[in-house]
Amino acid sequence: MQALVYQSLGRFKLEERPKPRIMRPTDAVVRLTKTTICGTDLHIGKGDVATCAPGTILGHEGVGVVDELGDSVNGFKKGDHVLISCISSCATCEYCRLGMYSHCKTGGWILGNQIDGTQAEYVRIPHADSSLYPIPSGADESALVLLSDIFPTGLECGVLNGKVQPGSTVVIVGAGPVGLAAMITAQLYSPSLIIMVDTDPNRLEVARSLGAHEVVDSRDTNVEEYVKNLTDGKGCDSVIEAVGIPATFDLCQKLVAPGGVIANVGVHGSKVDLHLETLWAHNITITTRLVDTVTTPMLLKLALSGKVDPSKLITHKFAFKEMEAAYATFGAAAKHRALKVLIEF
Amino acid sequence: MQALVYQSLGRFKLEERPKPRIMRPTDAVVRLTKTTICGTDLHIGKGDVATCAPGTILGHEGVGVVDELGDSVNGFKKGDHVLISCISSCATCEYCRLGMYSHCKTGGWILGNQIDGTQAEYVRIPHADSSLYPIPSGADESALVLLSDIFPTGLECGVLNGKVQPGSTVVIVGAGPVGLAAMITAQLYSPSLIIMVDTDPNRLEVARSLGAHEVVDSRDTNVEEYVKNLTDGKGCDSVIEAVGIPATFDLCQKLVAPGGVIANVGVHGSKVDLHLETLWAHNITITTRLVDTVTTPMLLKLALSGKVDPSKLITHKFAFKEMEAAYATFGAAAKHRALKVLIEF
Repeated sequence: MQALVYQSLGRFKLEERPKPRIMRPTDAVVRLTKTTICGTDLHIGKGDVATCAPGTILGHEGVGVVDELGDSVNGFKKGDHVLISCISSCATCEYCRLGMYSHCKTGGWILGNQIDGTQAEYVRIPHADSSLYPIPSGADESALVLLSDIFPTGLECGVLNGKVQPGSTVVIVGAGPVGLAAMITAQLYSPSLIIMVDTDPNRLEVARSLGAHEVVDSRDTNVEEYVKNLTDGKGCDSVIEAVGIPATFDLCQKLVAPGGVIANVGVHGSKVDLHLETLWAHNITITTRLVDTVTTPMLLKLALSGKVDPSKLITHKFAFKEMEAAYATFGAAAKHRALKVLIEF
Repeated sequence: MQALVYQSLGRFKLEERPKPRIMRPTDAVVRLTKTTICGTDLHIGKGDVATCAPGTILGHEGVGVVDELGDSVNGFKKGDHVLISCISSCATCEYCRLGMYSHCKTGGWILGNQIDGTQAEYVRIPHADSSLYPIPSGADESALVLLSDIFPTGLECGVLNGKVQPGSTVVIVGAGPVGLAAMITAQLYSPSLIIMVDTDPNRLEVARSLGAHEVVDSRDTNVEEYVKNLTDGKGCDSVIEAVGIPATFDLCQKLVAPGGVIANVGVHGSKVDLHLETLWAHNITITTRLVDTVTTPMLLKLALSGKVDPSKLITHKFAFKEMEAAYATFGAAAKHRALKVLIEF
């Protein structure tokens, strides 16, 4: 089969690889129909993800059809259409029983990282019963592929950890795909104000069109002043960090109201400054989370009913054979005004 | 009247001052019977608390008798014995209605900081109805004075923010009075393991005698290894920071289990490093809080019923006229094996 392989720093190539086989009775092999590229795949290409060795087939997002099943898989049959979770979970270890699938002792984020991933014609899915979700036939699978990772990430790491509630005030720093997914799912909880901060006018325009009440370009506006002016001088109840660099985490500390939450979503490569000399008395909460994908069933219901439309974040479509071009486009996202690129098989 | 005044850097002196008077109809004047000295008073002496000007009468902890009442105070009468909260709260502003009395718009921590405090024969208490608590006659007022600040601080900022629960694992870094108050109140929630970390063998011995399951001297033990060995390699569910310096906050980040909480109690004078490069995916929570004293009624019931005995932290007693000697003893706490010093009028 064809597969997109992380070859070495900066090199992503389509290669011929053997079709994966069932290795454990809890495995499934899925034939992909849709996949996409995540910012984390680009991080892998930069060598930022130590657990992912060169030679790995990338990808942790995908929709497909069950092709083969291990003997102990009960919930699926060959031919079923499925959503693949970016998180593999055994459902029985100590962490899984706490709903913390991200820390599953034999799973977690391993797809396209420690084991071969979804940017291939076929993928082996460990712990299939608790890592795949059934999709009704006829559903818009282009939209659903965004439920593998970015929508649960935005919702769980941003909105739920950030305690967004009816009437509350929210600021999101970073209007990339995950920041936008947080913004879309924040609206499920009816906050009174959503402010989006970014440095890319195109992304800010998209944010406004998808429901941001206010958008701020941090290149030419004092964001702290702007946010305080909109919130009686207090700052926001929920501050969602969706970039992952010290400067944006620093900004978030200036935007949080007394009693508020900074929900970190960004993947950070270095330590940051935490200003406890002021925040110690500010009654705030800071949260971090690798997505657990516990909200995937909720998001599937929302997407299938049309209450949430993830496909609004898809800006480009490619055939799988154009995968290298898709990487080039997504790797220069600002230039191409790219949010999510859809890959079709 | 006699009052202990912060005169200038490092200088605390007893002075003759006029007796305070009712300034607003919601005020009370209380004649002190017991007070104590807090680590924060020493911070003021070092110039660390910008809001406290030289010339201020210090002290935010105290028990006494109502001497005079403003016209609109309803809950108390002259002669009532009362506990003074370190936090003054109007009970009606936006923050007070959220239970965040620490951020009361006309109160908060102002006693012995922005207005004259409790280390005096008399003190004016603003917002008396919601900042004083009745004490039954005959109660042990020596013990109750520790409910003005350190017990609610340990409980709210440490135990409740740290989400201590039955069966959970707890490590407390810092066995000073507030760390010990956190340790005592943590036991109300029946954790399976409480580890106390400090550098003072005397304080660690006190911690063990008051219920710590394990005590660790961080001068000669690798605390991370020690804690991980006791917790199946995971770290603790609740990590309580009760020191307030970068090194101890750093240690806490190494001790927290996936899904756990670092509850900051320490008063920090400088920024700290936050290791998001590892913690971003660790599903943790960090909390900060200036005590709200919302648990004071609960703690009063516990202390009056004997379920919690705050007096165990009192190591020294002084008459009010010996106040300067009391400061000298508390200022060299390790040498004198001092925890809390009780001042009697």
